[in-house]
Amino acid sequence: MDPDAVAKAFVEHYYSTFDANRAGLANLYQEGSMLTFEGQKIQGCPSIVAKLTSLPFQQCQHSITTVDCQPSGPAGGMLVFVSGHLQLVGEQHALKFSQMFHLMPTPQGSFYVLNDIFRLNYA
Amino acid sequence: MDPDAVAKAFVEHYYSTFDANRAGLANLYQEGSMLTFEGQKIQGCPSIVAKLTSLPFQQCQHSITTVDCQPSGPAGGMLVFVSGHLQLVGEQHALKFSQMFHLMPTPQGSFYVLNDIFRLNYA
Repeated sequence: MDPDAVAKAFVEHYYSTFDANRAGLANLYQEGSMLTFEGQKIQGCPSIVAKLTSLPFQQCQHSITTVDCQPSGPAGGMLVFVSGHLQLVGEQHALKFSQMFHLMPTPQGSFYVLNDIFRLNYA
Repeated sequence: MDPDAVAKAFVEHYYSTFDANRAGLANLYQEGSMLTFEGQKIQGCPSIVAKLTSLPFQQCQHSITTVDCQPSGPAGGMLVFVSGHLQLVGEQHALKFSQMFHLMPTPQGSFYVLNDIFRLNYA
């Protein structure tokens, strides 16, 4: 399958899960996964999901502007770089964000998130 | 050495080289390196440097807002995620950008850029 199509499918799955059922993101992280969220470093699937589900907003809607991807090394990994907007319910203006994922293949032929770095793009 | 300090030193070296002597970036890429610049995919050090030195501006000044880093896998690699501003000479407003680097160690104890993805953050 075309790597760009894989990256796009992953990104759509990730953000639709985030917006509809944030706890379901647990399926995409593993024990060795790392998240850096606005500079805060968090390690391991349970801690990452605890962070994401305790963000100070309940409902949100991501919209994606760009998705770039590159293969990463001989282990079948993939780097995915996303830019987009995050609309919070009750807020007038959407927030711009950039996020990168380092995806690694699973034995089941899918991918999990090894590295995840998220930043809001302030002015 | 602290990974955050290594990442910060790399970022300062990269952008000061970019701003002062763009052709000198050739020292930081190798044949297997990949650059995705505003969606355009470029492979290999010579092609990457040709792209960077032929951008439609001569003088520029990067300023860095955030640097995040994570270790990446067992081979000693490092992921570095940067946000900042790019000021072009003669332009009134700086451009916001986000960029990620996947750094790999060299036998000499330094790092080279295996993966590089750059995006301007338009409104």
